[in-house]
Amino acid sequence: MESATQALLQADLLLAEQVITDHEAILQHARKTEEQALTVLALQAPVAGDLRAVVSALKNIADVERMAALALHVAKITRRRHPQKVLPEEVNGYFTEMGRIAVDMGSNVKQVVLSMDTHRAEQLADDDDDMDNLHRHLFSVLMDREWKHGVAPAVDVTLLGRYYERFADHAVEIGRRVIFSATGESAV
Amino acid sequence: MESATQALLQADLLLAEQVITDHEAILQHARKTEEQALTVLALQAPVAGDLRAVVSALKNIADVERMAALALHVAKITRRRHPQKVLPEEVNGYFTEMGRIAVDMGSNVKQVVLSMDTHRAEQLADDDDDMDNLHRHLFSVLMDREWKHGVAPAVDVTLLGRYYERFADHAVEIGRRVIFSATGESAV
Repeated sequence: MESATQALLQADLLLAEQVITDHEAILQHARKTEEQALTVLALQAPVAGDLRAVVSALKNIADVERMAALALHVAKITRRRHPQKVLPEEVNGYFTEMGRIAVDMGSNVKQVVLSMDTHRAEQLADDDDDMDNLHRHLFSVLMDREWKHGVAPAVDVTLLGRYYERFADHAVEIGRRVIFSATGESAV
Repeated sequence: MESATQALLQADLLLAEQVITDHEAILQHARKTEEQALTVLALQAPVAGDLRAVVSALKNIADVERMAALALHVAKITRRRHPQKVLPEEVNGYFTEMGRIAVDMGSNVKQVVLSMDTHRAEQLADDDDDMDNLHRHLFSVLMDREWKHGVAPAVDVTLLGRYYERFADHAVEIGRRVIFSATGESAV
């Protein structure tokens, strides 16, 4: 998502292509990780907390895959509009900031999963609130009578806004599972 | 999705509210089904094909939950714009048809899961092609210089189009898993 955001903001075709190429490697790694989880289930037949941990891992993989797909979508819009920039100057700041939050959340959620740090997992919800606020403001810019870039860029901005917002949602979901695994509180 | 589409097309607030209320029941049912899958894993420690079937079921639950969330989004946009209709007359036909395909796919995917009918599962991909074509046409209507409804309805139509397209994608995912379970071909 870091590269995809940079590609988006700078209309950098090479970087967008790189994101698109790298996506395949993420999928392969997800498949491999999933096979490892299945092997644990088959060979060790875990129960109780251990079973839930493996099932959580399977769900986390699905969320990470979606996060990767959303970064892929950002890169593909960038490629589709190249050499034009996708974004009207006016909303660059929103995407710079949404990109920064998304990358932070991606990095934090990795640490949360590795460390089972529930405090840090709770902070993901705060970051998501920031993302949602930006997303709402972005929509009010779009809906404003002063918007003078026409419908086509508005459609792109709408989709891109949704991709960043969903990226953050998936990070929150993973964080929630870690909190549940650690404390037994709230749903997986 | 059937009710959500009807609510959308007719600006039917009561029906939209019903979809929003019913969503909670779907989530509860999903949680219950997931607990059943976990119980099977814990008590029966299945291996090989049986293990993959249970893990597939867990993934299917996640897809069905997303399908329900997408119908919820359709209902929420309908409620937000009430008593106005969300859709300009011009695109009603697209959403009537996308709704019909989505409902068909939802109904077919249920039969596919219950019957393990791989032929019917393959047809889901054809329906998804129809959905994607409609989605593309919808975008060309939005992008057309003749679009005279302004940016705000364009933003709603963009999001709604994405919801229907994603709904179909999830049905296809479930179908793919059934094909994989039955034949061992392609990824879970």
